[in-house]
Amino acid sequence: MGFNQISILGVGLIGGSMGLACRESIKFCKIIGYGHRPEELQRAVERGAIHEATTDAAAAVADADLVVLCTPVGSFGPVFESIAQALKAGVIVTDVGSTKRMIAKLAERILPPNSRFVGSHPMAGSERHGIENARADLFANAVCIVTPTDSTDPKTVEIVEEFWHRLKMKTVRMSPEEHDRLTADISHLPHAIAAALVRMQTPGSLRLAAGGFLDSTRIAAGDSTLWRDILLENRDNLRSGVVRLQDQLQQLLDRLDANDATAVQEWLKAANVVRSGMRKPPDR
Amino acid sequence: MGFNQISILGVGLIGGSMGLACRESIKFCKIIGYGHRPEELQRAVERGAIHEATTDAAAAVADADLVVLCTPVGSFGPVFESIAQALKAGVIVTDVGSTKRMIAKLAERILPPNSRFVGSHPMAGSERHGIENARADLFANAVCIVTPTDSTDPKTVEIVEEFWHRLKMKTVRMSPEEHDRLTADISHLPHAIAAALVRMQTPGSLRLAAGGFLDSTRIAAGDSTLWRDILLENRDNLRSGVVRLQDQLQQLLDRLDANDATAVQEWLKAANVVRSGMRKPPDR
Repeated sequence: MGFNQISILGVGLIGGSMGLACRESIKFCKIIGYGHRPEELQRAVERGAIHEATTDAAAAVADADLVVLCTPVGSFGPVFESIAQALKAGVIVTDVGSTKRMIAKLAERILPPNSRFVGSHPMAGSERHGIENARADLFANAVCIVTPTDSTDPKTVEIVEEFWHRLKMKTVRMSPEEHDRLTADISHLPHAIAAALVRMQTPGSLRLAAGGFLDSTRIAAGDSTLWRDILLENRDNLRSGVVRLQDQLQQLLDRLDANDATAVQEWLKAANVVRSGMRKPPDR
Repeated sequence: MGFNQISILGVGLIGGSMGLACRESIKFCKIIGYGHRPEELQRAVERGAIHEATTDAAAAVADADLVVLCTPVGSFGPVFESIAQALKAGVIVTDVGSTKRMIAKLAERILPPNSRFVGSHPMAGSERHGIENARADLFANAVCIVTPTDSTDPKTVEIVEEFWHRLKMKTVRMSPEEHDRLTADISHLPHAIAAALVRMQTPGSLRLAAGGFLDSTRIAAGDSTLWRDILLENRDNLRSGVVRLQDQLQQLLDRLDANDATAVQEWLKAANVVRSGMRKPPDR
């Protein structure tokens, strides 16, 4: 790939893990970390996730061949504003945000024409956050979605995909619109549901919680600022997902009301077959 | 407790694990297993979960001091019918079913007056099933709900609670009605939701599934016959839970529509605080 410098903006769980993975997989490349909390930057340096740190976003990207935005999606506009004038001609810019329509528009509007942007979304993470939970293998064997638009240079897409392959990810390519539609179903709605399931409990029911409830609501412990911005940004697709989920639940309730054991079992079995066929990658 | 013989009816995941736990924790007591599949009974004997096996339910309970019903909830009526005449006077009968109103009524109607029934529900399990997944520590540190009615002898409740304590469980006492109401929220609704979340996905979204989706839908891989009977039995409470879940989701959608970031974050944060405070017991 020939990158001499990669700048990672935001060195929490995702940015820190990316630094660790880059250090392991991409040799002879300087990794610069930007953040607004000096203590977190210091810990990222100590953990070996980045070579150098700065609290000045423009300084962080000045010599970069690749810039990866790892700050929360709500900060993308201000961060783009602060780096736009400092980018080298020809620099490749990507991100790891959970929604992709907004960042494509922000890049189009804010980044200079001689920079090359394509959005990315590595489908890896944790309900934990911060550099102290970063791991070099966070991305290994997971899927990364790369989201070119009609105006994206194809070569840029290939280079960014190769970058993710170096971090041991499988890449999938789709438009920002399709990304936001599909991730609403597979990620954002499950997050909203997990939180709603926790919220509707009572002290009496919570003390009876077992492994099933804990697993099905684990993601509700995720960072609420981060998820606030994701759900706000993708609310149209989320709303469509809620409607389709309610349709499914209504089907179940109708079959229960009809006391139709066969129909109830068919409803459950279809989910069982799909879910039983899905497995976590072996080393995750 | 002075039990000379415990009879376990049904030697799958739960019954098999109970046999293993009894062998470990209750000395000088014969464990008899009943089932309708000779191969499963044979494996239960080979794994040391039971001392002796029989496919005759009446024979299995004839000399028992404690009978524990571990067959699926849908079979409770027929199993009670087949053992009622064979029970010793004074025998204690309990079960491990996920709903408790029905079995209390069945016991009242079918079991002889000189037997002593109280329902139990150990909140431990797995989406896996069968004797091959049985473990002596399945129950350790988990909660077991014991559900006396107005007509239950208090001494019987104490003896059954002591039995669960011997299997390293914490017990909680409540009426069958309260049990069914609370477990609808903490267990049955989450199961229905997990299945609905899987059912509403498309091939395009499923290939993007990451750890969050897999955890939040793990229970959808549970046995569909077993869950069919649980959901049918507890459909009134399940319906109430669906309504309250939809209320929660509507609150979220309203806050998203109003573009009220603070209100969205508060909605998420309340769930985050509750869920972050819940942890699996250390050895599970």
